[in-house]
Amino acid sequence: MKLNEDIQLDVAEVGERILGRWADIRRHTRSVIIDKKLSKPLGASFEKHREVVLDNLKTLVKEGATQYGFPEALGGQLNPGGSLSSFEELVFADPSLQIKFGVQYGLFSSAILYLGTDYHHEAFLPKAVNLDTPGAFAMTETGHGSDVASIGTLATYDPATKEFVIHTPDRHSYKDYLGNAAKHGEAAVVFAQLITGGENHGVHAFFVPIRKRGKLLPGVGSEDDGLKGGLNGIDNGRLFFDNVRIPKANLLNRYADVTDEGEYTSSIDSPGRRFFTQLGALVQGRVSLVGAVVNAQKKALDIAVRYGLERKQFPGPDGKEKTLMDYGRHQRRLFPLVARTYAQIFSHQELLEQFHVVFSGEGDTEENRSDLETVAAAGKALSTWYALDTIQQAREACGGQGFMAEHQLTGLRADLDIYVTFEGDNNVLLQLVAKRLLQDYAKAFKSPDFGTLATYVAGQVGSAAIHRGGLRGMAQTIVDFGSTARSVGYVKDEEHQHQLLTDRVHTMVANLANKLKHSGPKDKAKEAELFNRHQNDLILAAQAHAELIMWEAFTTALKSIKDKDSLQILTWLRDLYGFTLLEENMAWYVVNGRLSSARAEAITDYIDGRLLPRLRPHVESLVDAFLLSPELIGTNLAADERARQSGKKTLVRN
Amino acid sequence: MKLNEDIQLDVAEVGERILGRWADIRRHTRSVIIDKKLSKPLGASFEKHREVVLDNLKTLVKEGATQYGFPEALGGQLNPGGSLSSFEELVFADPSLQIKFGVQYGLFSSAILYLGTDYHHEAFLPKAVNLDTPGAFAMTETGHGSDVASIGTLATYDPATKEFVIHTPDRHSYKDYLGNAAKHGEAAVVFAQLITGGENHGVHAFFVPIRKRGKLLPGVGSEDDGLKGGLNGIDNGRLFFDNVRIPKANLLNRYADVTDEGEYTSSIDSPGRRFFTQLGALVQGRVSLVGAVVNAQKKALDIAVRYGLERKQFPGPDGKEKTLMDYGRHQRRLFPLVARTYAQIFSHQELLEQFHVVFSGEGDTEENRSDLETVAAAGKALSTWYALDTIQQAREACGGQGFMAEHQLTGLRADLDIYVTFEGDNNVLLQLVAKRLLQDYAKAFKSPDFGTLATYVAGQVGSAAIHRGGLRGMAQTIVDFGSTARSVGYVKDEEHQHQLLTDRVHTMVANLANKLKHSGPKDKAKEAELFNRHQNDLILAAQAHAELIMWEAFTTALKSIKDKDSLQILTWLRDLYGFTLLEENMAWYVVNGRLSSARAEAITDYIDGRLLPRLRPHVESLVDAFLLSPELIGTNLAADERARQSGKKTLVRN
Repeated sequence: MKLNEDIQLDVAEVGERILGRWADIRRHTRSVIIDKKLSKPLGASFEKHREVVLDNLKTLVKEGATQYGFPEALGGQLNPGGSLSSFEELVFADPSLQIKFGVQYGLFSSAILYLGTDYHHEAFLPKAVNLDTPGAFAMTETGHGSDVASIGTLATYDPATKEFVIHTPDRHSYKDYLGNAAKHGEAAVVFAQLITGGENHGVHAFFVPIRKRGKLLPGVGSEDDGLKGGLNGIDNGRLFFDNVRIPKANLLNRYADVTDEGEYTSSIDSPGRRFFTQLGALVQGRVSLVGAVVNAQKKALDIAVRYGLERKQFPGPDGKEKTLMDYGRHQRRLFPLVARTYAQIFSHQELLEQFHVVFSGEGDTEENRSDLETVAAAGKALSTWYALDTIQQAREACGGQGFMAEHQLTGLRADLDIYVTFEGDNNVLLQLVAKRLLQDYAKAFKSPDFGTLATYVAGQVGSAAIHRGGLRGMAQTIVDFGSTARSVGYVKDEEHQHQLLTDRVHTMVANLANKLKHSGPKDKAKEAELFNRHQNDLILAAQAHAELIMWEAFTTALKSIKDKDSLQILTWLRDLYGFTLLEENMAWYVVNGRLSSARAEAITDYIDGRLLPRLRPHVESLVDAFLLSPELIGTNLAADERARQSGKKTLVRN
Repeated sequence: MKLNEDIQLDVAEVGERILGRWADIRRHTRSVIIDKKLSKPLGASFEKHREVVLDNLKTLVKEGATQYGFPEALGGQLNPGGSLSSFEELVFADPSLQIKFGVQYGLFSSAILYLGTDYHHEAFLPKAVNLDTPGAFAMTETGHGSDVASIGTLATYDPATKEFVIHTPDRHSYKDYLGNAAKHGEAAVVFAQLITGGENHGVHAFFVPIRKRGKLLPGVGSEDDGLKGGLNGIDNGRLFFDNVRIPKANLLNRYADVTDEGEYTSSIDSPGRRFFTQLGALVQGRVSLVGAVVNAQKKALDIAVRYGLERKQFPGPDGKEKTLMDYGRHQRRLFPLVARTYAQIFSHQELLEQFHVVFSGEGDTEENRSDLETVAAAGKALSTWYALDTIQQAREACGGQGFMAEHQLTGLRADLDIYVTFEGDNNVLLQLVAKRLLQDYAKAFKSPDFGTLATYVAGQVGSAAIHRGGLRGMAQTIVDFGSTARSVGYVKDEEHQHQLLTDRVHTMVANLANKLKHSGPKDKAKEAELFNRHQNDLILAAQAHAELIMWEAFTTALKSIKDKDSLQILTWLRDLYGFTLLEENMAWYVVNGRLSSARAEAITDYIDGRLLPRLRPHVESLVDAFLLSPELIGTNLAADERARQSGKKTLVRN
């Protein structure tokens, strides 16, 4: 076996693996960013920043980086995965540009494409795609953030004129936080309660012109959200409507329509299913945000790791100054973040693949959609929180330099802050995941009686019964937990890591099912109270499930690595990810008898004593494999530091 | 016993207790903030923001809010605690204003006061205190952030002219990140290696004029740090010197001097002690930052808690919409933060008192100083991290509204980000704390042999042997841990909470001492390697110690609460703080046999099932007791939300 010092990561192979299936599209978008110098204007007023972003988006349109998801006639490839890949890279230019792209293409144009029919594709889509019609996606309302089904905006059909009347009944029903609403938007896809013949048929989408050459149309109101904590290159604002009339044809009628006389028809009978089908395209936003924040993490870690390798502080015992990266604490801060980022990279690739299969039509089944939604919700919630944590740790690891705007980290964090809230608040998304886990759990046992199911904790599940998106299969029965053998050999084993992580999810879900079981007669209020009391546990179970998905994706990706040295290094990195997961949840493992106290302590010792020192010589090549140049990162703090250290005598300027 | 619904917090009494000893000064500063409308100009360029902040500081000077710490002849009271109290309140106006105050008074003027002698107090202090001479505190260098002893700036004595020559030898020795350096500063207290007769006597402080009427003086260079992640109202910049000559008298010579002929003299023989004595005044910054961030947390929680009490989302099972605050997860996010903030409030009061005793001269002993430094380092590190966490949780709890700049949370977080780095990087500070704990540990056993000391883990320590700042006394021997009794009755008991928290610190320190024990012959490199490998554990032990200090302060404060209802509510809140500490560190308690698995689970159940519901009716009055008005907070999101809900029909504006 080679010594650690003698092995090295094959940066080209691993780098290509990280770029993934749509590498060419990603490379093209990166080259546009670099060649056209698309970047965030530091220190600009938000008015100026908004204009820069609109100009930059126009440049992307011209360079063909925005159309991949749309029909060939509009310059596209009907390539959903490719479209998201291009979007995801834009975080390297400016997160505001990325979200402006997302509003125009992922939301506004996609709604026309996926909820509209031929008429809309001909009448509205070309100008949406070529950016002649900047558009807003008017779903969220001030008073109804996550609860879209309860929105207040009305679309009442008037058979006399064959028009819908779009109306905002109260202040809480203002459409809010919409990109393109404050300034640039000329139209909006408005979500409203469709009323015809006095009956409410639920939320539907309508194409509504709002401005002409920058001037609001009659009956349309707009307010500017003004300065925000970040993303100030986007003109977020509010929209509200005073009996604005639009032609009946402006209903995006793929799933439902109204006859001239006002009769409502739909290809989907259940109002609930109809609602969720129309919201289905939203999953795109969640999938692509995961890719976006993972790229942001690459950028942050590239900056912090390289700086840590250059920066010297305090002389060591031999009198030589050590670099920051030689300190145990510094390794503890950064290496697990590198490991987690790799896990996120590979699980995002799987998610993007799932998305592409469904949205390209290759495998658009209800089961695939449902799985996709669960995995996307779990991934979006965890990854956006991880991103804020990772960028902040990177900022602190760069000390005072990290606080300077030119070094990108503070601005990146400020911009990404809202990613944890929009496209579905993380806590709401994790509850969706938890509900799915409970459903799968009940289904797996073909019994609605959760009580008897609790015995399952020590049991075994056939993986065939379990969906890809929901509860994961467990490889084998739980054996031998809680042995007091001191070695970590057992946990180092891949299969056992998997078992420990899977078992935790299963047991948490089973315990929850048991706790949520309501023994008396049906009582909705009591059930809700019980659910509420365990709301935090539900979210923790969903998190555990999302962590498992990431670990599995990392492990699957290892199988595709050909270079032996690289496989060795990435296996250590995967172990670091697995071990830190075990360590973070150690209380659970010990309390539930899954790990003995001796093993618990051995895990921490193994991280500090073995994994971190082993990875130390490879951390630079692990960030090299992100294939980011200083132009994409927008700063080169490490090179600056090197230059300062070798700097000659100071020239005084005054 | 009264029902929970029937008891209520005495907001007046608890509010006064929270304002603390210098309540009058705090009230005065708050009234100046409100009356003079001192606030952060949202959306202003950094150039404009800097001028606003300078003007606001002048207003504070005029209103007598800045002079408390200085001699009566200069309008002050020589009241160190009062001075810090005024500083701490300024976070409500604008953190940039606060730090500008800190630079001018806590650093620049304080250095003249504490390191200078009569000559300096007469020649330089009056104009520093009345702000005629804005000044920089030039300690940190680009290449030597935390390692002040290694700074490169030179002050070489020239007996021919009786001058010191201040010189910057290289790019890494630029003074950096200094407030007042880029624009407003007319002088600086410069820390430099004092060289005389070819010998380096270590770091000393010098008064150096740098500008006259805004123009840099000959030989002085300055660069602007430019846009930062926050605190953009401060003109941070770099300073560097090309053989700048200052009179010998400009050496701040309280602890050391040079004769005309160039002979070095000092009242402190040991160079190490001399260095740390001169840096002693820096503790002021750490103490006051704790108070500042605690105030910022009050502000963030005031906003988030009131919003959560108004905001409705999703109908409940009875069809009525519940407020956010009725959700279990929302309570789980916010209530422990309220509890921790109370713990920080009370521990900061103790810290401020300790500081006042030392700096007012009442009790300026070496032991008191050393204790103060340890507690301040621990408090600064934990509190600044807690602040970022608290503000972020508050931001997320306010959803999209939390991201709007007008609602203050994002700006507050951005400004406070750097508080974890400046005045001593948190990780460096926690290592100082850990070293002290290890020293106390060795001292308590009067033996340098850590090996035998490990037996102490199960033993007992007399509290008399333990300093106030270092290792805390344990009330009694460890008994009865690991019992499987299901009830949490045992842990609910105050004394047992104390015992569990204390025992953890003692055991961690003892284990570390054992691990750091080097068995072979003395080998500095090997010792350092061992230390480095356990660097992360050292920091965790210091954190545990800081948590214990906060719990103790909260518990001590309970004894001063007269109103019985309030005592009950605050005891629940203290229990929530203690229980969440136990829960966060549950792995340790179970692995080390201090808590049984059954008790571990019971603790989580007790938090969710008992403490959170009990505190739910009182959370509003708990933030009422912060005594903050919407003018101090700068927004009233909850009132806006209420108004929107009761809003009549929309008026369309366009």
